[in-house]
Amino acid sequence: MRGGYAGAWLAALGLLIATVWLGPARAEDGYDLWLRYRPMPAEARASYGDTLRSLTPGGDSPTLMRVTAELTRGLSGLTGRNAPITDRPGEGAVLYGTPATSALIAALDLPLSDLGEEGYLLRSVRIDGRPVTVIAGNTDVGVLYGAFELLRRMQTRQPIAALDVRSRPAMRLRVLNHWDNLDRTVERGYAGQSIWDWHKLPDFRPRLYEDYARANASIGVNGTVLNNVNSNARSLTPEYIAKTAALAEVFRPYGIRVYLSARFSAPMEIGGLPTADPMDPRVRAWWRAKAEEIYAAIPDFGGFLVKANSEGQPGPQDFGRTHADGANMLAEALAPHGGVVMWRAFVYAAENPEDRHKQANLEFEPLDGEFAENVLVQVKNGAIDFQPREPFHPLFGAMPRTPLMLELQITKEYLGFATHLAYLGTMWEEVLRADTWCPSQGSTVAKVIDGTAFGHRLTGMAGVANIGSDRNWSGSHFDQANWYAFGRMAWDPQAADAETIAREWAAMTFTPDPRFVEPAVTMMMGSRQAVVDYMTPLGLHHLMATGHHYGPGPWVDDLARPEWNPVYYHRANAEGIGFDRTASGSNAVAQYAPEVAARFGDPDVVEEDLLLWFHHVPWDRRMRSGRTLWEELVGRYDRGVATVGEMQDTWARLRPFVDDQRFEEVAAFLSIQKEEARWWRDASIAYFRVFADRPLPEGAREPEHGLDHYRALSFPEAPGHW
Amino acid sequence: MRGGYAGAWLAALGLLIATVWLGPARAEDGYDLWLRYRPMPAEARASYGDTLRSLTPGGDSPTLMRVTAELTRGLSGLTGRNAPITDRPGEGAVLYGTPATSALIAALDLPLSDLGEEGYLLRSVRIDGRPVTVIAGNTDVGVLYGAFELLRRMQTRQPIAALDVRSRPAMRLRVLNHWDNLDRTVERGYAGQSIWDWHKLPDFRPRLYEDYARANASIGVNGTVLNNVNSNARSLTPEYIAKTAALAEVFRPYGIRVYLSARFSAPMEIGGLPTADPMDPRVRAWWRAKAEEIYAAIPDFGGFLVKANSEGQPGPQDFGRTHADGANMLAEALAPHGGVVMWRAFVYAAENPEDRHKQANLEFEPLDGEFAENVLVQVKNGAIDFQPREPFHPLFGAMPRTPLMLELQITKEYLGFATHLAYLGTMWEEVLRADTWCPSQGSTVAKVIDGTAFGHRLTGMAGVANIGSDRNWSGSHFDQANWYAFGRMAWDPQAADAETIAREWAAMTFTPDPRFVEPAVTMMMGSRQAVVDYMTPLGLHHLMATGHHYGPGPWVDDLARPEWNPVYYHRANAEGIGFDRTASGSNAVAQYAPEVAARFGDPDVVEEDLLLWFHHVPWDRRMRSGRTLWEELVGRYDRGVATVGEMQDTWARLRPFVDDQRFEEVAAFLSIQKEEARWWRDASIAYFRVFADRPLPEGAREPEHGLDHYRALSFPEAPGHW
Repeated sequence: MRGGYAGAWLAALGLLIATVWLGPARAEDGYDLWLRYRPMPAEARASYGDTLRSLTPGGDSPTLMRVTAELTRGLSGLTGRNAPITDRPGEGAVLYGTPATSALIAALDLPLSDLGEEGYLLRSVRIDGRPVTVIAGNTDVGVLYGAFELLRRMQTRQPIAALDVRSRPAMRLRVLNHWDNLDRTVERGYAGQSIWDWHKLPDFRPRLYEDYARANASIGVNGTVLNNVNSNARSLTPEYIAKTAALAEVFRPYGIRVYLSARFSAPMEIGGLPTADPMDPRVRAWWRAKAEEIYAAIPDFGGFLVKANSEGQPGPQDFGRTHADGANMLAEALAPHGGVVMWRAFVYAAENPEDRHKQANLEFEPLDGEFAENVLVQVKNGAIDFQPREPFHPLFGAMPRTPLMLELQITKEYLGFATHLAYLGTMWEEVLRADTWCPSQGSTVAKVIDGTAFGHRLTGMAGVANIGSDRNWSGSHFDQANWYAFGRMAWDPQAADAETIAREWAAMTFTPDPRFVEPAVTMMMGSRQAVVDYMTPLGLHHLMATGHHYGPGPWVDDLARPEWNPVYYHRANAEGIGFDRTASGSNAVAQYAPEVAARFGDPDVVEEDLLLWFHHVPWDRRMRSGRTLWEELVGRYDRGVATVGEMQDTWARLRPFVDDQRFEEVAAFLSIQKEEARWWRDASIAYFRVFADRPLPEGAREPEHGLDHYRALSFPEAPGHW
Repeated sequence: MRGGYAGAWLAALGLLIATVWLGPARAEDGYDLWLRYRPMPAEARASYGDTLRSLTPGGDSPTLMRVTAELTRGLSGLTGRNAPITDRPGEGAVLYGTPATSALIAALDLPLSDLGEEGYLLRSVRIDGRPVTVIAGNTDVGVLYGAFELLRRMQTRQPIAALDVRSRPAMRLRVLNHWDNLDRTVERGYAGQSIWDWHKLPDFRPRLYEDYARANASIGVNGTVLNNVNSNARSLTPEYIAKTAALAEVFRPYGIRVYLSARFSAPMEIGGLPTADPMDPRVRAWWRAKAEEIYAAIPDFGGFLVKANSEGQPGPQDFGRTHADGANMLAEALAPHGGVVMWRAFVYAAENPEDRHKQANLEFEPLDGEFAENVLVQVKNGAIDFQPREPFHPLFGAMPRTPLMLELQITKEYLGFATHLAYLGTMWEEVLRADTWCPSQGSTVAKVIDGTAFGHRLTGMAGVANIGSDRNWSGSHFDQANWYAFGRMAWDPQAADAETIAREWAAMTFTPDPRFVEPAVTMMMGSRQAVVDYMTPLGLHHLMATGHHYGPGPWVDDLARPEWNPVYYHRANAEGIGFDRTASGSNAVAQYAPEVAARFGDPDVVEEDLLLWFHHVPWDRRMRSGRTLWEELVGRYDRGVATVGEMQDTWARLRPFVDDQRFEEVAAFLSIQKEEARWWRDASIAYFRVFADRPLPEGAREPEHGLDHYRALSFPEAPGHW
């Protein structure tokens, strides 16, 4: 008997020793994202482990089973103790579920009524005199979100002994947009192939799919559009619906609905109809039947995302109809099943000589009020196209009777692909906090999209995913932060705080040690401005080379459509540089509220980071720094390059806190970023100096090569270019 | 003091307990291949651990440092003990190195003289009376191969206490051919993207690259052709040479040389010359300069692989020159640097109405003796194209004065892609053992390629890689076995034994428990014949649908060139089925030695598995089973499908021995294979019955759908189709 006891004791000791002294056995290759659950230091382990000792699930639904699995994984990883599952909550139990399925939770009479369908409550209570931590919600998915919040608090070393937290999402749709093609190429994807292996679906469902759902649920994402907005009608065939249904089945317990990008001409391409005219009864019937077919396979199907009459995609205008006609036809087909249409406002037309900046408003403002109830209009962050910095889109505030979604680009099409470290939280915070002055001061973009500005209940935010088959999901370790930030900001855009989110992410993904977190967050917070500085400073935009958007191409002037050419945007000449969008130019400023137009329209008032966006400015204009515009321009380029150097220095100092593999990968990417920042700076200066015809400022380095060198570079194998 | 002692003891105990009771902490996702080094059972751990207690490296070269790392990893993983590194070999030491850098090894006076540059010796000796295990060779790479052999013996639980092993490769070039494009697509690749991330090279060198080299070194592969034989001249630009040099640097310590597929027209495309005529002095000078440029960056560059005048690729015939002219020009440029040319014999021409089976011989036999000394002619396994079963290629034996390489296809272009379990070791053993009767009986293909048949010293074997960015490298767990078998067979093709290799691989990759190994190996050994049976039984060939080679397309008759159409190959009509390659037909049999031609040419003698390859046979011909040809054909299809069902049953019984993740992935793939085997069987029977015009044999199942159904299927997103 003594022997048996000693054996058990040794086993427990072995577990402890293994956890404490051997450290993490898993390779740190980035696959675990921010859900690493690596062991805490000993003191923390004891304290958190005492608070959370056992698990009492309040039900056995598929979602609650995943809550149990996640808590088990998290607690054993973080504290090194296994939390047994018990029917009755003892001291240190975690009790979780909804009042509907758990009498224990119902008996607590918790304030859940205003938490909606996805909110959660975390509270430290006493049951029969014993301290218990409760995770409750009105639905199992709310409980799942609460479980992830509890684990996040442990991962970031926040106190959990006296919890009283209630949270609910401010937005209904928090969706990723995958620009993934059926052949596994990804448009503007820099993380390998599409993770959707359509060829092997529906039979083969690798664990990756469930891990994708877990990661998204952990940050509150509740929907995913599986296929590219430049879509293929085949995704609506029965064969592909079965494949989509298989993914929906994997995602369902995590509260994630699937959506599809719908090709407007599908009734012709796969339906055998001679037209896709939204007013044609055969077309309407085809879409209704298609919706029924989809919902028969996927009862919680989310709906359609549509890119129509934009960049060559088919749409209702091909048949003399409006965007509203097209959207409403699809909405009618989806409405009986509870689905929505997300109709993109990113439109510009070859035949339209108007400033591209203005075209979305010109097409969509007149349609305000004409869309069906289950339609949202999805508006890109930036009227041009996801540039490193754009003023907020003038549609926000301009369509009060229409729910507008904000579309962010998580993948870094214009910010250096996966190899440049650029935390986008600051960019998104900037746009969410931008004041539209519609209907009045304080009506930020966040308030427009979360429905508070104009009283909409159907609300949402979309992020173009940066996820691919790369082992670390996002192509680089720091790009995981952008996926994370998207989810956290979509949960409550008014509260979006880029620095807090960066801090959370860094602590969870690397280590909560402040000697790591503080410098890493400082580096992240300055990183997007660095890209702006070395690529497109002072409001310059769309200067990327043709097709791949990888390197600089300010000289490009040979593309078919004027607004595809960088020269269209910078308008450099002997006098100055910049796009006059005031009344003396395209007058795009007039699409904003008067107060905003007055600010953007006055070169003395507008922020210098947007100066050349709205104004054509003489080379010798005196800037706030006292330097001329030309000197300031070169100075900004140099500042951008210098910041990358500082990031390299910071990272080198963080080596003691980072595992070898991730340290080396980040260091290699920073080295590439440094080279490419210099390339951007040198090529841009070599080009613009021809117009400025002025010497480089005192002390500024000569570009390494002549302009011809930069113009001759070509990158036919750059990724994401399809 | 006692406290310190107890602490150390507890730590050691903890390590032991962790290893024994907690099991492997790493996820079994297949990334570790056959180098898993998971803990042995306790008794084995003690015994092997006592034999190998410490490491004594005989040098500190980059290669020997990797030997140390591999032995450390292997011994600690397998035995749970750390083997300390010591200067002097104590009891249980492993002493490794070459006599050149280790006086200890030199003093042992080991018989190394006939081990060549890559051979190794493993021997149990006594030094100062203490038992020591020696790994020695004439080069560090030989030692590396020996270390992997020692670890393999541990992994497969062979005795290591009284070793006396000497081995050297029978072939000089053991190379993988990557059909990888610069944009990361892979022609005929079913494991994701190319692992070569050219865009991020030369700066970014993920660990994957070193793990690739380790895995290849562990099976004796010593070269890799990085880019597709359908090549892009950009791979020869300075920018890409720098990228290739970065890979060469990673691979060099593992004894792996890099090669490039050279585009014959590169002097025109990137050299600015008006011609690529191999007799033009400017062209010759361009290639000489290019070789110098490459060798300046990569001193151990291996050479060029060339696909010329085949399937639209440029070549010397474009300029009225022969294959020998083209190959010799490149050979001349490489010779001063020690490089070789591997010139592919896979040629067939649109304008040539001759049986495709004969065309390589017709073009190459007359050139025998005309190739430079550093040229090998690389011959596909099969005169048609890597079919599930082909007779050996008639070029083997037909070019006695030319070194011939054998090109095998590891990637399963024609054997069900990654989802079908098909172990190719049996196929390769079959071809290696095939008797060419040139110059005399017993001159097997193995003896032709290893140089013994005709006295060549420049020898080699190539395998078209099945490696991609998928986490498990090969797209499926069992496809790893084909990579493994290629390396093992290339080491010594005369000794190639598919079953022994399967046994080794299964033990290392899953578990050496015979309750697993025996059934798994039985399943593997029958798997290729199952594919033959359900796809192309009895010598049928090239019946795959257009482009992707995924599903059946025996009906295809609309492609531009006759020999691209399946109907060209099966020739089914009301009388019978099969391709008459005897004297009454194309007389392809005459390209073989008379003894072989007599066997293949006689329908009563030829093996039934090749019957329809060589003969057009009446539907009612009586087969050895007593059934008619038609009945036998249907019977073979049914046998193939049934075998897959048996494989499913076998795998289900092996569940106790396999981790969940790999078990489920293999099970899902077997389920897909079963469905697709039925599809092949049903579609083929639905088509051939039209010609046979006979009822299905008693008891045979009706095809599930009519022929129109199968003809209408299309798979535009099938992988590997570029």
